Amino acid sequence: MSLNTFGHLFRVTTWGESHGPALGATVDGCPPGVPVDAALLQHWLDRRKPGQSKYTTQRREADEVEILSGTFEGRTTGTPVQLTIRNTDQRSKDYSEIAEKFRPGHADITYWQKYGIRDYRGGGRSSARETAARVAAGGLARAALKALAPQVTIRGYMVQMGPHRIDRDRFDIDEIERNPFWVPDAVAAGDWADYLDGLRKSGNSVGAVVEVVASGVPAGLGAPIYGKLDTDLAAAMMSINAVKGVEIGEGMGAAELTGEENADEIFMGNDGQPVYSSNHAGGILGGISTGQDLVVRFAVKPTSSILKTRQTITKSGEAAEIITKGRHDPCVGIRAVPVGEAMMACVVLDHLLLHRGQIGDAGGRIG
Amino acid sequence: MSLNTFGHLFRVTTWGESHGPALGATVDGCPPGVPVDAALLQHWLDRRKPGQSKYTTQRREADEVEILSGTFEGRTTGTPVQLTIRNTDQRSKDYSEIAEKFRPGHADITYWQKYGIRDYRGGGRSSARETAARVAAGGLARAALKALAPQVTIRGYMVQMGPHRIDRDRFDIDEIERNPFWVPDAVAAGDWADYLDGLRKSGNSVGAVVEVVASGVPAGLGAPIYGKLDTDLAAAMMSINAVKGVEIGEGMGAAELTGEENADEIFMGNDGQPVYSSNHAGGILGGISTGQDLVVRFAVKPTSSILKTRQTITKSGEAAEIITKGRHDPCVGIRAVPVGEAMMACVVLDHLLLHRGQIGDAGGRIG
Amino acid sequence: MSLNTFGHLFRVTTWGESHGPALGATVDGCPPGVPVDAALLQHWLDRRKPGQSKYTTQRREADEVEILSGTFEGRTTGTPVQLTIRNTDQRSKDYSEIAEKFRPGHADITYWQKYGIRDYRGGGRSSARETAARVAAGGLARAALKALAPQVTIRGYMVQMGPHRIDRDRFDIDEIERNPFWVPDAVAAGDWADYLDGLRKSGNSVGAVVEVVASGVPAGLGAPIYGKLDTDLAAAMMSINAVKGVEIGEGMGAAELTGEENADEIFMGNDGQPVYSSNHAGGILGGISTGQDLVVRFAVKPTSSILKTRQTITKSGEAAEIITKGRHDPCVGIRAVPVGEAMMACVVLDHLLLHRGQIGDAGGRIG
Amino acid sequence: MSLNTFGHLFRVTTWGESHGPALGATVDGCPPGVPVDAALLQHWLDRRKPGQSKYTTQRREADEVEILSGTFEGRTTGTPVQLTIRNTDQRSKDYSEIAEKFRPGHADITYWQKYGIRDYRGGGRSSARETAARVAAGGLARAALKALAPQVTIRGYMVQMGPHRIDRDRFDIDEIERNPFWVPDAVAAGDWADYLDGLRKSGNSVGAVVEVVASGVPAGLGAPIYGKLDTDLAAAMMSINAVKGVEIGEGMGAAELTGEENADEIFMGNDGQPVYSSNHAGGILGGISTGQDLVVRFAVKPTSSILKTRQTITKSGEAAEIITKGRHDPCVGIRAVPVGEAMMACVVLDHLLLHRGQIGDAGGRIG
Repeated sequence: MSLNTFGHLFRVTTWGESHGPALGATVDGCPPGVPVDAALLQHWLDRRKPGQSKYTTQRREADEVEILSGTFEGRTTGTPVQLTIRNTDQRSKDYSEIAEKFRPGHADITYWQKYGIRDYRGGGRSSARETAARVAAGGLARAALKALAPQVTIRGYMVQMGPHRIDRDRFDIDEIERNPFWVPDAVAAGDWADYLDGLRKSGNSVGAVVEVVASGVPAGLGAPIYGKLDTDLAAAMMSINAVKGVEIGEGMGAAELTGEENADEIFMGNDGQPVYSSNHAGGILGGISTGQDLVVRFAVKPTSSILKTRQTITKSGEAAEIITKGRHDPCVGIRAVPVGEAMMACVVLDHLLLHRGQIGDAGGRIG
Repeated sequence: MSLNTFGHLFRVTTWGESHGPALGATVDGCPPGVPVDAALLQHWLDRRKPGQSKYTTQRREADEVEILSGTFEGRTTGTPVQLTIRNTDQRSKDYSEIAEKFRPGHADITYWQKYGIRDYRGGGRSSARETAARVAAGGLARAALKALAPQVTIRGYMVQMGPHRIDRDRFDIDEIERNPFWVPDAVAAGDWADYLDGLRKSGNSVGAVVEVVASGVPAGLGAPIYGKLDTDLAAAMMSINAVKGVEIGEGMGAAELTGEENADEIFMGNDGQPVYSSNHAGGILGGISTGQDLVVRFAVKPTSSILKTRQTITKSGEAAEIITKGRHDPCVGIRAVPVGEAMMACVVLDHLLLHRGQIGDAGGRIG
Repeated sequence: MSLNTFGHLFRVTTWGESHGPALGATVDGCPPGVPVDAALLQHWLDRRKPGQSKYTTQRREADEVEILSGTFEGRTTGTPVQLTIRNTDQRSKDYSEIAEKFRPGHADITYWQKYGIRDYRGGGRSSARETAARVAAGGLARAALKALAPQVTIRGYMVQMGPHRIDRDRFDIDEIERNPFWVPDAVAAGDWADYLDGLRKSGNSVGAVVEVVASGVPAGLGAPIYGKLDTDLAAAMMSINAVKGVEIGEGMGAAELTGEENADEIFMGNDGQPVYSSNHAGGILGGISTGQDLVVRFAVKPTSSILKTRQTITKSGEAAEIITKGRHDPCVGIRAVPVGEAMMACVVLDHLLLHRGQIGDAGGRIG
Repeated sequence: MSLNTFGHLFRVTTWGESHGPALGATVDGCPPGVPVDAALLQHWLDRRKPGQSKYTTQRREADEVEILSGTFEGRTTGTPVQLTIRNTDQRSKDYSEIAEKFRPGHADITYWQKYGIRDYRGGGRSSARETAARVAAGGLARAALKALAPQVTIRGYMVQMGPHRIDRDRFDIDEIERNPFWVPDAVAAGDWADYLDGLRKSGNSVGAVVEVVASGVPAGLGAPIYGKLDTDLAAAMMSINAVKGVEIGEGMGAAELTGEENADEIFMGNDGQPVYSSNHAGGILGGISTGQDLVVRFAVKPTSSILKTRQTITKSGEAAEIITKGRHDPCVGIRAVPVGEAMMACVVLDHLLLHRGQIGDAGGRIG
């Protein structure tokens, strides 16, 4: 990763600010011949789009993606793909107060301290709007995965909102698309709606935990020691705005396990591939995929733009109070679900290409 | 990060296997004129060295580091610094069984599936011995930090071992050096000793959580969106063997907070620098340092090399049982403390150089 | 450099095809606070623009650059700058024949062999139109240089067209802007006009040599061994379409010199800086700038799109004859002058930042 | 390339100084399973070794390479390969004078101006000894090429020494190994011996041009726009000490050709692959290999360490005269032949892996 770029071979550079003319992703290294068009990418962008329920910001953005380069007659050419999204609903007036005051818990102050200049409108580059570009790039990565490794599926969902966690015994994958929280637990969906309604009305916000699972990923992707699959997944998720923690498999809970409990036992499956008694590892051992589900979780902090009065300072160092009016997400973790999926898609594709580059298709066979 | 390299400008490539002739770190991009010699690096290596208490592996390694290039008359020259550590206590006979069988929870199987060949002696490249090279590189980073930003201090310690957590009310920084667990809580140190003794005797192992804090880091280090300071810290820690989760500040716990609770309020300090009412952010907002303490935690899973019988398979796909005899760490998290510190030192120095490259010293001043 | 990206800290990724909707450059790592707007970049683009004399392609492109991100109130913010140029004059019909046949001397065949798909309209990604994006990025680099190192000036010009070389004794820097060839020799300008007229009418084309000089570059920029200033300049120039050779200082002619002739003698200047008796080195010793003029030359091969009949094959492997009608440059080297300047600006700025990152401003002083 | 590293996927970082304890190459990303041992690499190092004839420096170095990591039972494991060469004949006393004075035409002064410190013994990092590490890495690349693309052959030779060029009509590949100049022209070999003898006795030195040809390289390697095969070859060759110019195919001479002359006509060969009437392109079109021979030439300037008196200055800025005694190469271009071959091997392998990563083996077929 280098400033605004991630990926080894499938390299994504995002650009753009919340209230500039446009934002987007420049994607280099995509395999050629991948069927893709704007409509296909739009499908994924529409899932992230704000204003779809009362639980996300009421900013109205069409989020229409244009493909400006790198495709020809509906397929990628292997040259850079430029994905551009015009900003349409910018209402700069909402943001005038934060030109002078720094929002507590927000990047306002650090951007100022670093650069000595910042586009304060809507958070500028630090806005969650940047994630639209990731979702567009992730859509392209999914299209490439479909061509190269069609058995791979990627699914994200919420597993926690504030103090409320899902009940894994009620886990129902089909439930995810039926509620505004992408939560795989119908009971939780109802409870969370009530809880978030209350928070939203009080002008407050809350954090969340998102889980993303990739199934069908072949064994052998990744690399020691720094280009590990888990390293890249951790970086990818931590790079999403507002993320403060990342877990692979057991995650932080691995600290509580004994070696005996943690070691997933290995057996031979009927198809000649290893199977495991459990998946504490989250599908990764020694930085390399096992062939089991890749399981990643990340915690998203609550939005700092809230209607609560907080103490802060101004650019000139004066003490001040701040209340952030405007259109914000009471739980920005909700919209992080498609973003986490997009990052997973990019990382898996990138490691697929990286593995193919160094090894070809001929690793070690068992049995 | 690319395979075995990390860092943007201060670039560390580690190399070497557990039972090869040597291992080390090739460090490129170090500032010139930094006072450093082998003794200075040895200080940090000695802290990580195995066999110092009954709680770490009884392998006896001198872990003597040689500086083969990049220094002249006791100072760095700005050219690559080669840090080499010879392996001396290799006893390959201990590892003969794992040439054919894969240890559950270990990288044995994934290395085989990826490469079709592996140096099975002592885990080869996936061995925790690789971290000696990181500690040597981290010692160099500390020396450079001392020259460039002498106010920076870095301190790691354990905060959890298995189910046992420290009591933050008993936090005593001076206690860290007084017990074999680097734990800042004298009571915990006693309790953990009993607990780990029991585990060790039963041939089992357990996980841990390590916290690393960097103080004195100037505001403004980091970068949107993928080269964020927290992204690089997450990657750095996740790249350490056996790490399964990484947290910045509140970490996974940020999910439970409301926006009002989470937003660290800002005031002007007496020295004209902002001060904060709290540090939920762990010293990073929008990927950029605030000037507060950088607070990172990571979970280390239990060693998979245990004296417990586990089900596994052989390279030829036969079912098998495995018990890993040999000299292993009952809680490898202990030795991860100096490793976490080393990674913190490398990342902070790297971002200091990166910031200087793009911005010079002239960011925005408050007040 | 990685596929479509170059630069260490000032990183330029270009994207876009000749006949797609747009092309551009995504520039990451630009210092913040640099005054820049579209008009300033347009100045440089207008110099490269086709159709300005009868000696360049008659394609009519407005080449209007838009800045879509990374600036605020007329200054860079330190976040990625997206420079986009819409294609307006595409006339795809001219290119129908080359969909099936490969032009000898052109990338048609290699793109096909590599990717199995290509946007054949106007050369697609391999078109010289891509260089418009470089010139835009170079304009940004010049603006940053003006802010950081205002004494740096960059000047390119032609020194050879086909068999005709300039006479160094007639070298007149002011002449460069007075003729359509950017040639610093009034006599040559006249001769070349006649020569190229003849070639153009016969449907042929010819090669050229361009020289680019950067003055005022401080001593100390560059790095051993692979990130050398001359390495990066060579790569930068060789990456321009149709370039087949690159020289620093004496270049290929260095082979003919003895050590005694080649070694530029050193003296102390009145301002306490070293001065040299000559500049065979082209301003670079050991990959690091001396403070003398950086002198780079590169050879541009003749355009392969010509009105002469040539033997070739089709995609299906049939023998064929080809004549490339359409609007082409009889000497594409002419338009390479502003492109070479742009690459020089990007490389010098990049190394300025890189040096500042590793060293700060404190290298060794003489005297 | 980044400071001391080159390559996209096959990444080589060299380290070490002329008179430090050792130097070497850390090679990451090598494919696993490649048969290699120290003896195999030694074969290539012995070709570069000084002191083999009276025409190269009389420094006596065993140049024995050790493989410290990344191989197991005679094959690469896919993890980093550390290649180390101990310095044995250092005689620091020869170099005492240059501690204070800067040699004209040498990196002494620029290293000082950049870093403010330098290992002046034998040129330190800027010594041609660094190229031993390249040759070792190149030997590994050749071994990998032998496994992946056994039809590839790489051959370097001198084509010019001072004013003397080979006669292409006398070109005899078998002659290369029969003379101390690696020159494929028996008559030239004799003439050059007389010429160089005279120069050597007078304490002078002279430049040279080396040509390196890779045959059997498949079509399709390379990439637009900055990761071009020719860009990477130019950078690779320009990164060698003392190189001042690089040419692909016609090189600088392309400037003199018309489009009609330059465009290599295409025909179908009997084996269903395209054949060309000529190879002005040097095997690369649009940055991508055509399947023809890759032809690269580079000019090496004369050694600056000569027995002639030259004017210079000291570190404290005093005027001084300098004569460099010691053991130097009258034509360092001779020993650049195996170095150029090594760089070619590294670049071709790297692009083979890069192509496989992005495209797999399925590009476009003709016919």
